[in-house]
Amino acid sequence: MAAPTDRRADALDVLRRQHIELPSWAFGNSGTRFKVFAQPGVPRDPWEKIADAAQVHRLTGVAPTVALHIPWDRVDDYSALAAHARDLGVGVGTINSNVFQDDDYRLGSVTNPDPAVRRKAVGHLLDCVDVMDATGSRDLKLWFSDGTNYPGQDDLRARQDRLAEALSEVYDRLGPDQRLLLEYKLFEPAFYATDVPDWGTAYAHCLELGEKAVVCVDTGHHAAHTNIEFIVAFLLRAGKLGAFDFNSRFYADDDLMVGAADPFQLFRIMYEVVRGGGTAEDTEVAFMLDQCHNIEPKIAGQIRSVMNVQEATAKALLVDADALAAAQRDGDVLAANAALMDAYDTDVRPLLAGLREDQGLDPDPMAAHARSGYMERVVDERKGGNQAGWGA
Amino acid sequence: MAAPTDRRADALDVLRRQHIELPSWAFGNSGTRFKVFAQPGVPRDPWEKIADAAQVHRLTGVAPTVALHIPWDRVDDYSALAAHARDLGVGVGTINSNVFQDDDYRLGSVTNPDPAVRRKAVGHLLDCVDVMDATGSRDLKLWFSDGTNYPGQDDLRARQDRLAEALSEVYDRLGPDQRLLLEYKLFEPAFYATDVPDWGTAYAHCLELGEKAVVCVDTGHHAAHTNIEFIVAFLLRAGKLGAFDFNSRFYADDDLMVGAADPFQLFRIMYEVVRGGGTAEDTEVAFMLDQCHNIEPKIAGQIRSVMNVQEATAKALLVDADALAAAQRDGDVLAANAALMDAYDTDVRPLLAGLREDQGLDPDPMAAHARSGYMERVVDERKGGNQAGWGA
Amino acid sequence: MAAPTDRRADALDVLRRQHIELPSWAFGNSGTRFKVFAQPGVPRDPWEKIADAAQVHRLTGVAPTVALHIPWDRVDDYSALAAHARDLGVGVGTINSNVFQDDDYRLGSVTNPDPAVRRKAVGHLLDCVDVMDATGSRDLKLWFSDGTNYPGQDDLRARQDRLAEALSEVYDRLGPDQRLLLEYKLFEPAFYATDVPDWGTAYAHCLELGEKAVVCVDTGHHAAHTNIEFIVAFLLRAGKLGAFDFNSRFYADDDLMVGAADPFQLFRIMYEVVRGGGTAEDTEVAFMLDQCHNIEPKIAGQIRSVMNVQEATAKALLVDADALAAAQRDGDVLAANAALMDAYDTDVRPLLAGLREDQGLDPDPMAAHARSGYMERVVDERKGGNQAGWGA
Amino acid sequence: MAAPTDRRADALDVLRRQHIELPSWAFGNSGTRFKVFAQPGVPRDPWEKIADAAQVHRLTGVAPTVALHIPWDRVDDYSALAAHARDLGVGVGTINSNVFQDDDYRLGSVTNPDPAVRRKAVGHLLDCVDVMDATGSRDLKLWFSDGTNYPGQDDLRARQDRLAEALSEVYDRLGPDQRLLLEYKLFEPAFYATDVPDWGTAYAHCLELGEKAVVCVDTGHHAAHTNIEFIVAFLLRAGKLGAFDFNSRFYADDDLMVGAADPFQLFRIMYEVVRGGGTAEDTEVAFMLDQCHNIEPKIAGQIRSVMNVQEATAKALLVDADALAAAQRDGDVLAANAALMDAYDTDVRPLLAGLREDQGLDPDPMAAHARSGYMERVVDERKGGNQAGWGA
Repeated sequence: MAAPTDRRADALDVLRRQHIELPSWAFGNSGTRFKVFAQPGVPRDPWEKIADAAQVHRLTGVAPTVALHIPWDRVDDYSALAAHARDLGVGVGTINSNVFQDDDYRLGSVTNPDPAVRRKAVGHLLDCVDVMDATGSRDLKLWFSDGTNYPGQDDLRARQDRLAEALSEVYDRLGPDQRLLLEYKLFEPAFYATDVPDWGTAYAHCLELGEKAVVCVDTGHHAAHTNIEFIVAFLLRAGKLGAFDFNSRFYADDDLMVGAADPFQLFRIMYEVVRGGGTAEDTEVAFMLDQCHNIEPKIAGQIRSVMNVQEATAKALLVDADALAAAQRDGDVLAANAALMDAYDTDVRPLLAGLREDQGLDPDPMAAHARSGYMERVVDERKGGNQAGWGA
Repeated sequence: MAAPTDRRADALDVLRRQHIELPSWAFGNSGTRFKVFAQPGVPRDPWEKIADAAQVHRLTGVAPTVALHIPWDRVDDYSALAAHARDLGVGVGTINSNVFQDDDYRLGSVTNPDPAVRRKAVGHLLDCVDVMDATGSRDLKLWFSDGTNYPGQDDLRARQDRLAEALSEVYDRLGPDQRLLLEYKLFEPAFYATDVPDWGTAYAHCLELGEKAVVCVDTGHHAAHTNIEFIVAFLLRAGKLGAFDFNSRFYADDDLMVGAADPFQLFRIMYEVVRGGGTAEDTEVAFMLDQCHNIEPKIAGQIRSVMNVQEATAKALLVDADALAAAQRDGDVLAANAALMDAYDTDVRPLLAGLREDQGLDPDPMAAHARSGYMERVVDERKGGNQAGWGA
Repeated sequence: MAAPTDRRADALDVLRRQHIELPSWAFGNSGTRFKVFAQPGVPRDPWEKIADAAQVHRLTGVAPTVALHIPWDRVDDYSALAAHARDLGVGVGTINSNVFQDDDYRLGSVTNPDPAVRRKAVGHLLDCVDVMDATGSRDLKLWFSDGTNYPGQDDLRARQDRLAEALSEVYDRLGPDQRLLLEYKLFEPAFYATDVPDWGTAYAHCLELGEKAVVCVDTGHHAAHTNIEFIVAFLLRAGKLGAFDFNSRFYADDDLMVGAADPFQLFRIMYEVVRGGGTAEDTEVAFMLDQCHNIEPKIAGQIRSVMNVQEATAKALLVDADALAAAQRDGDVLAANAALMDAYDTDVRPLLAGLREDQGLDPDPMAAHARSGYMERVVDERKGGNQAGWGA
Repeated sequence: MAAPTDRRADALDVLRRQHIELPSWAFGNSGTRFKVFAQPGVPRDPWEKIADAAQVHRLTGVAPTVALHIPWDRVDDYSALAAHARDLGVGVGTINSNVFQDDDYRLGSVTNPDPAVRRKAVGHLLDCVDVMDATGSRDLKLWFSDGTNYPGQDDLRARQDRLAEALSEVYDRLGPDQRLLLEYKLFEPAFYATDVPDWGTAYAHCLELGEKAVVCVDTGHHAAHTNIEFIVAFLLRAGKLGAFDFNSRFYADDDLMVGAADPFQLFRIMYEVVRGGGTAEDTEVAFMLDQCHNIEPKIAGQIRSVMNVQEATAKALLVDADALAAAQRDGDVLAANAALMDAYDTDVRPLLAGLREDQGLDPDPMAAHARSGYMERVVDERKGGNQAGWGA
């Protein structure tokens, strides 16, 4: 049985090499259909987004890569962009495709009843693999807004056939070390039937595609009452958990800072990740943020989110696995629950502050960011041009 | 006991004078945060929106007024706009205020912690009453996007105090025949706490304000599993049901065509309206549409929606009230349910087609619209300029 | 293109051979944790339950089999019970297992941390296959209440391993023409994590087991906002839709009469069934009711439910498939939706009344039941003894 | 500005006089409609239930009263029962009425269409006031299971009239220092429309009744996504928050241990209680548990629940109100959120252990209970007789 000190040491080992990927688009403006509030200092291009992400990594030490979103982050020379990232101390991570913002996609992209639109959408996905080749990215993330708003609008089953066909074509284009991450979402922007609405659908398609296809769990994409940690445990057991898109929500796909709405849920998820080997040194699970800082400052919002993931992970790592297993084996409901809660109730902030100091970082990244003058500088520099945003 | 023929005759009386108000903004472009798909022929100003609304009334005969949205429908001369409407056979209805699209409103309008922002927001609401005076509108509809995204962001209780203060100031400005409609909504764009999240909050504020303050029920603004017809029955009993914003949804505030997602629910709502006197000749309940035709054509979408309300109303009016009451009195669960379902299962389309013919209208408004050449004409005429939209 | 008359004729062909299985337990007392209201005339044993089911079939003509629930319907001689059913004009259908009512099952049955309890549970399931051999039943329905109430209570992943092991042992025992139906349910009685919570989990286990394992969709077992017809379409496409447990709900697993809460949803489900071949002559989809008539009379409740399924099926069969497909192909959202709604809005009661008359049945089964004197007779006969119920 | 030490001192003042009422029925057997698992040592009568409650108070020091449930706790001599409680160091608290378990109540109690049933139900409620007079209880808690399962089953509005009439009669019977607590619940056992489904309905009736009528918030009785702390803040502002029934849930009215499913929500609720004066010395808010320990031991379950409330309260009291207010005033979203989270992330278990030691209690009530031999003793003593339960 691991003594508490050993558990702390083991936890620190994992926390030291934690890797949380940041989304380039979190640094641009975002909002709701009612209003996008612009913020001063927001990046105007991918180069500036990567600079902001690098600031987050500089202060937290655990966010060494940035995910790109094509076409929002389209540039002429992706190797130059990758070099720019490297110069700033970070790397380019997952490539996110976007087949939902052309007028052609009004009735869907890869599941559109019109074969010409499907052709175009698949073409974009294949282009994304080209970008991956240029940036050295391992993962292609596919989220489809495809779906219907009205019963009868299109044939649910035919859309699955079209989806399978498109996925298969993209899958075949992947290099030997590349993966396809299939993301699911209950609703929005489709309001009747979404074509990949739940983990079961994503899982079934990934199974059919093969080993390089894995599921991406966005923590804000489920029906109310869904037990997300169950899905995590299930997919890890099946070898099909590819990645997380972290964020939190009180209602729908609110895209709030991860851990803000239900920190206990985040802890339970991270506990299942730990339990299922997802924090092992050779893990293939990618941990990414996918959030919208509609009303709060974006860089600080990302720092806080990274810290929230760190804290949940630390707590999950501190669970006394032996005590827990013993209580479970004995059918002692309250003792088993207490073993888990004991870790959750622990204040892990000192542990993480200590880790940062060990790594030569400021123990308080939020304060360090405020003091750094970074925001003042970019607000000053980024005058003129168009702030990045979703362009909806 | 009313014989079936009498029920049909009584139903036709009500249906003949039915009045469904159209929202000007339904004719403009709308969408989600992911994409607003533009459509050909969309109006570029309030004058064109009113023209489109008039087309709906011309074909259905039951949509004689158009609600305006300020500032989206801001014009220099509201009496000219009202005259324009009259020329086209319709009138100006409810005035909808908008205090959610200025950058100042990032943290709220009338509940903003900053008194200067609150001042500005109240000022806009008072301006809306000026518009009402100019257009002869009876109702001021207040929907506040105010709320918070994160626990602790602001003081929930202080925000209620600010809300009460603002409402009181606007209420005092109302003329003797003007009303304030207070709308509630569970969430979006606020993702943690909305300041008027449910009917209870709206009702409590209206009670405090006085007789001219009444509740507006938007059918898409409730938590999952909410029994909307119960709320309708309760508010009618309390004399506080002011208006409906009709639309339908499978998930959140999807703003689909009313009756599209759950026609049985719409029927149950209309049954409670009938039961509670809301279709009486002197009813003070306003029936309005509030929808987004994101992917379907807008005028046709409005026609279909109007017809859906008509059909639900017709079915509600056909309920055999005596048979129902007798079964309820006897505690005969299945007979009582059957009495209600018998009306719902009736195909009322022939009844409504007959009514239209009686009124000199085409029995099939959708087909008549398609044949009318209206769309072709406006697509041709409305070239250049900026299409109307939410401007989010 | 099928003319309307042909569609009616084709629909009647399907409706004539429709087969809806009744659950023996629907004729016993049921209720909530707050109260089980006893009703006069309720059966006291399986023989009487089958008699009540036969009354439903006698009047509707489409309910020729009765599902049994072991141990609630345990008898010494199952062939005698099957003969009794045959004498009354019905047959024994699916065998439902019950591993949730022994004190041993407090922490689970096949997923219990205690191997002795798992052993016992699997033993019961194997016994159920013996019953199937004796009754000639094709299907074994497995619903597990297994799950946990508190985070940490047991190991989510280990429970999946135990589940897989148990299922595999039962699967291996099946005869060549027998099937295993795996049912899923979001929650209740487990309140934190259910071991088979969703279709994805059931599907994944069935895939692993093999061809004879298929999914059973209980229409009341989903998270709010779940699009059930999507699941139906998906499972039919994958060849894994084994059966329905029909009921309806406004909230959770309310077990109301099917079609009572959302008749439009039932229609959409039946439309996907038709679309996916589930009403073809050689269909392997089983259609069963699974309901609780807590406050309404049970036999009449079953009759009404059977009629609700018939009506939804009739409407689904009347969809003009050619018009629908054409509108879908053209991307005409409103026309496609209208093609579906046109069938839904049709009053199919006359069609079904005519069918019954063709078959020598009373066109109004509810009235015929009331007139039959059956209830008076059984109320009189069934004095003394213990009424059947769940024995919770 | 209060320094941290002062905040701790102030918090301890409140925590020292905290008062959490226990429900007698939590010590009896409970379960779901699927199964009630009996537990060894469960009380057989109110006297034994009070003894178990006294054990919880002995160990925690903050649970000095027990709520009774009539008729489950019916005795001939209530003053003797009160004396028995006093002897054990506790007192009798709230009287809970039960008008849902007689066969007469199948279609409702105070809202039943049959006036004789309504008469009987009101009679029971008046009897409960007699019990209050005998026990010296201040509060009468009214929860009505009344509602309907099927649309049309009864008249929603007439049921409100009947409800108002019954409440008024009971209200008039109250003594000058007695209160009526009106509880609301979304659903179960009614599955279509519940007569008091939400806080708005309860609030409206309480307003109409007068000052002695206040709302009881059961934390498990809301629609998914309901912001409960908003309701708490609103009712406190309106002077109408009478009491809490604490428990937690992942799905519906799961009645798990409070704080087990969403400890952050419990903290947010307690923060609003503190913010609104609900922990002031003269507070009129009653804090009660209402839970079902279906699978865990009951006394230990209650102890753990009491501790969970203590911890949430302690965290809420540690919020740096000045820092929070300043950040809110400045519109600093992240700082305001951080001020709240800082208190939540604090490990308050040492603070509470210290408080217990100051009070001469064991710092670890769970361990003290396990060591006390109490369970072994009652398991031994309570042989024979019928264990208490809901008798559903």
